[in-house]
Amino acid sequence: MTTYPRITQTAKYLPDKCVTNQDLPSWLETSDEWILSRTGIGQRFIAETENTHELCTKVAQKLLKKANLSPLDLDFIIVATMTGDFGMPSTACLVQGEIKATQAMCFDINSACSGFVYGLSLGEKLIQSGSYQKGLVIGGEVMSKLLDWQDRRTSVLFGDGAAGVLLEAVAGKSQFLAEKLGSDGSRGQALQARPFLINNPWVKQEERLSPYLTMDGRQVFQFTLNTVTENISTILKDNHLLPTDLDACLLHQANLRIVEGISHKTEIPLAKLPVNMERYGNTSAASIPILLDDCVEQGILKLGSEQKVLLTGFGGGLTWGSILLSL
Amino acid sequence: MTTYPRITQTAKYLPDKCVTNQDLPSWLETSDEWILSRTGIGQRFIAETENTHELCTKVAQKLLKKANLSPLDLDFIIVATMTGDFGMPSTACLVQGEIKATQAMCFDINSACSGFVYGLSLGEKLIQSGSYQKGLVIGGEVMSKLLDWQDRRTSVLFGDGAAGVLLEAVAGKSQFLAEKLGSDGSRGQALQARPFLINNPWVKQEERLSPYLTMDGRQVFQFTLNTVTENISTILKDNHLLPTDLDACLLHQANLRIVEGISHKTEIPLAKLPVNMERYGNTSAASIPILLDDCVEQGILKLGSEQKVLLTGFGGGLTWGSILLSL
Repeated sequence: MTTYPRITQTAKYLPDKCVTNQDLPSWLETSDEWILSRTGIGQRFIAETENTHELCTKVAQKLLKKANLSPLDLDFIIVATMTGDFGMPSTACLVQGEIKATQAMCFDINSACSGFVYGLSLGEKLIQSGSYQKGLVIGGEVMSKLLDWQDRRTSVLFGDGAAGVLLEAVAGKSQFLAEKLGSDGSRGQALQARPFLINNPWVKQEERLSPYLTMDGRQVFQFTLNTVTENISTILKDNHLLPTDLDACLLHQANLRIVEGISHKTEIPLAKLPVNMERYGNTSAASIPILLDDCVEQGILKLGSEQKVLLTGFGGGLTWGSILLSL
Repeated sequence: MTTYPRITQTAKYLPDKCVTNQDLPSWLETSDEWILSRTGIGQRFIAETENTHELCTKVAQKLLKKANLSPLDLDFIIVATMTGDFGMPSTACLVQGEIKATQAMCFDINSACSGFVYGLSLGEKLIQSGSYQKGLVIGGEVMSKLLDWQDRRTSVLFGDGAAGVLLEAVAGKSQFLAEKLGSDGSRGQALQARPFLINNPWVKQEERLSPYLTMDGRQVFQFTLNTVTENISTILKDNHLLPTDLDACLLHQANLRIVEGISHKTEIPLAKLPVNMERYGNTSAASIPILLDDCVEQGILKLGSEQKVLLTGFGGGLTWGSILLSL
C-alpha cells in the first residue's frame, strides 16, 4: 500500500514572559504607536529561562501527546533554527535527549527565517523515500539573544518561540502538491547575524563585525516584493491555481506591511493571508508553524480538509520558499 | 527514464598553512611522539585567511570544473558545518553567492562530525524525489576557531578543511544501497562547543560555559566502540554483507585508535579502512569527503566501479550514521 507524507498534528510553545510595546526598555525611546503602525507588531514573548531546545522540547511533547504516540515511534527530528543552544550538540539532538526518542536521527537545519519551509521539505523527502515513517519538523528560535537591545530598529521586531508539525507516512493522497525553494547568497549581507570569524594562533587580523542581528530594511522589503511575490506567483501558475483558489497563504510573519505588499502584488486577497505578528513579533523559523497552529486552533484551517494552503517563508540568506499543500 | 542519485565528482580544498606537531605552540608542552602515538595525527591545515565559506567555495568551484558544469545547473547546495561564517546567512548561501549558482536552493545542516553523511542522505532524497537534478553536498569546517588553543587535550586533534561531492540524477542503477543514521542527545555533553546562552534585558542569570570545544574523550571512545560498531554491523547484516565483502569503509577520521578499535570489533580488515588523519587531523564534517577524494585520487576507489563502500560518520550530538554505496 503506497503511503505519503502528511502533516497530522501541529503544536506551538511560547515562553511565559510577554513583552508589549509599552513594556520595552525605556532607553529604546520608541512607542507602541510607532512600532504598531510600521510593523503590525504589538507584543512578543521573550525567553527568560528557557533556551531554544527547551522551547522545541515542549513542542515535541505536545505533538506526541496530541497524536498519542510514544517517542520511540519517531524516526527523525529536524529543528530549523539559527539560535540553537550550542554549535554542538545540535538542538534536535537535545530535544531527542529530553523526550527520549532513541530511534530518531536528528539534525538542525539553518535557513534563517525560511528554515521551517526548508525543513518541512526535507521531512517530506525523508518520508517519501520510504526509509522513514514518522518525524517531527520544528522551527524554534530564541531571537532575543541575537538582538542588540540598544538598537530600536531591530530589537523591537523579533520574538522567541517554537512550533512544529508531526509528519507521518499515511495511505491515501499526497498532501504535498508542489514546492519551490530558492536562495540568493549574493544578497546575504542584507540580513546578517552572529559572525564567527577565523581565530587561532596563526591569525593576526582583528576583524570586527557586530555580533548582533543587522538588517537592511529597505533591501529586505524590496526582496519580499520582488523575489518572494515572484516565487508565489510562479508556484501558483505552475500548478494552474488562481490567487483566489487558495484557501490560505501562510506567510512568514515579519511585518504587516510586507503581507500587504505581497497581497497587492500577488492578488491573493488579504482575507486569505492570516497574520499574527501583532501577538508574537517575528519569530523567524518558528513563525509559519506558529501561524499554522493558530489557524488550526481557530478552525480557519483543518488538517485533512484538503484545503489548498501555501506556506511561504523568506528571510536571511537570502532564502525563500513555498510549499503548496492540500491540507 | 528512471534516474537515480549518483556521486559523479569529488573534490577537496585545504588551507595553505600546514601545522605539523612540531609547529604547535610551545605553550601546549606536547610532542610529536605523544600526539602521533595516541591519535595518529601528524599535522593539520589551519585557516589563516579563509573562513568556512571560502574553503567550501573552492570545493564547489573544483566540482563544477571537474564536471564541466555551469553553476546555473545546480539545484541545491547543502553545506554540513558547525563552524559557518555566520548564524545568518548560511554558509551554503555564501557559497552560492560566490559561484553565482542562482538556481540553487541552499541550506546548512548541523550534525557535527556526522554532518557529511547526514547531508549526503538529504541530497540523495532531494534527487530521489524527482524535484531536483543536480546538487552539491559539502562538508566544511574551520575547527581552529572553535578550539581552546591553551588546551592540549583538544587543540592538537583538529584541522580545517572542506570537501564534497557532486550529486546528479543519472540513468541506471541506484548507487545508494542503504542508510542507517542515529542520534543520542542524552549523551550530548560528551562533545560540546559554542554555547549560545539566553541573553536579553529580562534575563538576570549569568551562566558561564566554555565557548570552546570540550570533549569527554573516554565517553567518545566508548561510544565509537559500542554504538558506531553496532551501526556498522547492523547495516552490513541488513544488507547480507560480510565485513570482508566491503571494498572500503570510510570512517570519520577522529583518531587512529578508534579506527583500530572499530576494525577489531566489526571484523572489517584494517586494510579496508583507509586513514588520512596523520595528514589532516580531525576535520569534523569534512573528514569523510576528504578521505573519499583522497581515495579516488589515489585510485583506491573509482566512481562508477560499483565497489561496495560504506561511509560512516560519528561525533557530536551524539550522532552517527552509515551510508552503503555501490560506488
